[in-house]
Amino acid sequence: MALITPRTLSGFMELLPEAQKKMQRLMGTLRESYALYGFTPLDTPVIEAADVLLAKGGGETEKQIYRFTKGDSDLALRFDLTVPLAKYVALHYNQLAFPFRRYQIGKVYRGERAQRGRFREFYQADIDIVGDGKLDIMNEAEIPAVIFHTFRALGLRHFCIRVNNRKLLNGYFAMLGLEDRSGDVLRIIDKLDKVGRDRVEASLREEAGLAGETASQVLDFLACPGDSQDKLRFLEGFLGRNDTFDQGWRELSTVVEYMGAFGVPRENFQVDLTIARGLDYYTGTVYETTLTNYPEIGSVCSGGRYDNLAEYYTSRNLPGVGISIGVTRLFYVLQEQGLLSRDLLTAPADALVLPMGAGCTAFAVETATALRQAGVRVQVYFEDRKVKQKLSYADKAGFPFVLLIGEEEAAAGLVSLKDMGSGVQERLSPAEAARRIQSALAGARTCPVIREG
Amino acid sequence: MALITPRTLSGFMELLPEAQKKMQRLMGTLRESYALYGFTPLDTPVIEAADVLLAKGGGETEKQIYRFTKGDSDLALRFDLTVPLAKYVALHYNQLAFPFRRYQIGKVYRGERAQRGRFREFYQADIDIVGDGKLDIMNEAEIPAVIFHTFRALGLRHFCIRVNNRKLLNGYFAMLGLEDRSGDVLRIIDKLDKVGRDRVEASLREEAGLAGETASQVLDFLACPGDSQDKLRFLEGFLGRNDTFDQGWRELSTVVEYMGAFGVPRENFQVDLTIARGLDYYTGTVYETTLTNYPEIGSVCSGGRYDNLAEYYTSRNLPGVGISIGVTRLFYVLQEQGLLSRDLLTAPADALVLPMGAGCTAFAVETATALRQAGVRVQVYFEDRKVKQKLSYADKAGFPFVLLIGEEEAAAGLVSLKDMGSGVQERLSPAEAARRIQSALAGARTCPVIREG
Repeated sequence: MALITPRTLSGFMELLPEAQKKMQRLMGTLRESYALYGFTPLDTPVIEAADVLLAKGGGETEKQIYRFTKGDSDLALRFDLTVPLAKYVALHYNQLAFPFRRYQIGKVYRGERAQRGRFREFYQADIDIVGDGKLDIMNEAEIPAVIFHTFRALGLRHFCIRVNNRKLLNGYFAMLGLEDRSGDVLRIIDKLDKVGRDRVEASLREEAGLAGETASQVLDFLACPGDSQDKLRFLEGFLGRNDTFDQGWRELSTVVEYMGAFGVPRENFQVDLTIARGLDYYTGTVYETTLTNYPEIGSVCSGGRYDNLAEYYTSRNLPGVGISIGVTRLFYVLQEQGLLSRDLLTAPADALVLPMGAGCTAFAVETATALRQAGVRVQVYFEDRKVKQKLSYADKAGFPFVLLIGEEEAAAGLVSLKDMGSGVQERLSPAEAARRIQSALAGARTCPVIREG
Repeated sequence: MALITPRTLSGFMELLPEAQKKMQRLMGTLRESYALYGFTPLDTPVIEAADVLLAKGGGETEKQIYRFTKGDSDLALRFDLTVPLAKYVALHYNQLAFPFRRYQIGKVYRGERAQRGRFREFYQADIDIVGDGKLDIMNEAEIPAVIFHTFRALGLRHFCIRVNNRKLLNGYFAMLGLEDRSGDVLRIIDKLDKVGRDRVEASLREEAGLAGETASQVLDFLACPGDSQDKLRFLEGFLGRNDTFDQGWRELSTVVEYMGAFGVPRENFQVDLTIARGLDYYTGTVYETTLTNYPEIGSVCSGGRYDNLAEYYTSRNLPGVGISIGVTRLFYVLQEQGLLSRDLLTAPADALVLPMGAGCTAFAVETATALRQAGVRVQVYFEDRKVKQKLSYADKAGFPFVLLIGEEEAAAGLVSLKDMGSGVQERLSPAEAARRIQSALAGARTCPVIREG
């Protein structure tokens, strides 16, 4: 028979068991953290009717989409979790209580050009709060708290949640008579981090048609120095000239004011007027989160306030605020930077039970059953191999503990518990072995997935 | 703007929040139970190269598959989790330790005709143990223990794991001179449960060409009465006439022998010679699991031993044993039968904090932050609505506890904790409220997802 070469498509992440265990922990932490803030889990199909998914249409998205027919149906794979949320909320509106807070962690698909660190299939982890008709600014103030708690639960300490308000920027541009070029200007200044002031200033002049002086004035405004309070004071000087600006200032002040009550420390939060976010979709507070020691990675958690989630599906006004973590890319980057903790348990189980002879199998199985009842994750090695091969298996798979069960142990109702880290071996009852394992592994069970250097 | 009608494709499950929470619990229980037996989590792409996925080719599968091109690539969505496992093991063979034990819970796709209770996108939850060259029979004996523990953890009591061995059947057919018709006979007797003895007997005669007497003899053999031990004794009478039969008998005896050591009670396990499983893929022990009070549902967890997992990708011999739960269908059936527990928490959070006036917001946020630090899942209701509307939101979303925070409470640093079930309301410190909530909800946090009547 001719063999087919097994392969995984490029741009599709497929992890080995040890890495997969870390990914599971990362996603488990996200689920727990989101749930702690009252977000309910949601799951929607990966495949949707193409006309539903592409209701907004146009742009980069449509080119990248996986679209195909099956029978008479024109289908597409979701490219984000926002459009499925919009569909969900419009479709099930009558059965939902608003504000509707959901999290969703799921795979999305974009046929991007394959390159290192870019994925065509990747997990996104989103939270959104959707209001019915209106949504209080306090929801925007809560989002940094969710980001802060989530990143701390992941094990990160050196990160900064950078916050801005679109109304401030749009209002300021209006003061300069640039309201009709707001979109272009936002798109250009969004690249400030990547390309630097000079190139942005050139683009503002050449692409957005700003006078040299105006471009420079805009950039001075955005670069205003100091901490969040200093910036709010600086912005205060512009009040009274534009209503949108004034509203943005009040919103941003509220967000900053409540950070303390939400438990977000000053070092993890700052107002940053250069945060623009490319999408014209956002209308109020916008968020980006950067790892302080790895600025080159860019934002790992972004989002913002939008005015109309489901405008393509319903005439109801459903404003909301949401953020998204690109989980697959984040995991890839953490792995590349060596930031994934080595203290996590990555073996298939906590302990491997090794029966050392045919007569020991029944007692080995009973021991495993007892350990599992005590909550210890156990694998029994049943293969008929030499002792050396058995131990080499335990080693290769990385089991922290091995329980050796020979004729003598079986007769006495005991096990020889070997700590694979220290090499220490002790003869114990199964119950005592279970207690030892549980207490030794308590730290590894709760340690965060990330460990910063 | 013309609106697009929001809709979800038929055959694609999309749950409301309450049901989704139950589904999460169900899948969480599966993950924990599989991990307790030393299965490591795996995740593989939903999209694979079509030639890789269809290496085996032919049959029903190929007609049902979602296949499409993107650029130059001929792609397909996975239709089960076994083929991706075969690819994974062949591709990463050198980095894996064997026996390789993995679980995978993921969506698979089959373009079946849409009908009630049939899904085109559905979750499967699989475990497999894959050996390198050989695999001890004890692995086959362990599988019923995993099924038993998993089903008990889900909350089920009335279920039966029915076990057979293909070698016994094939050996017996050979004794009757039917070895060349084994496949047909197996496929026909697999329908015994659904269509009854008379129709199977007719099919054995008409389709498989068995003499009337032989067909009846086969059916008498399969219907042998008694418990597992009785059946093994009955089968013992056939020993010495066919090597395959004899091996099957030894294997089945081993599986039965160890059930006690694995902690599987007699009432949840039985040898059933009528279990054939349609696929010719299986070569040893085969499993089906039925809910005793709902026989019409059929098997909810099936699988078996196979000799060569990855024969289309590698010349290595990789025997294994595995089972699969069709999670989406199981969930659908449990929901239909009213078997999902009502004791589970399905609200977005454990408690809703309700600030009753603008001056209470800061204290409400601080209270929520403190409760979250104590592990209580909390949502703050920030919207500016009437008290009645706020309480009606709490009611609609099903929060078990509400913390009312008015000017008086804020000034005193207290909260009014309302138990929404009993209606009882008490004024407490935030720390005391957290303790009350945690202790009241301890049961709901751990209760199984299924509650049998």
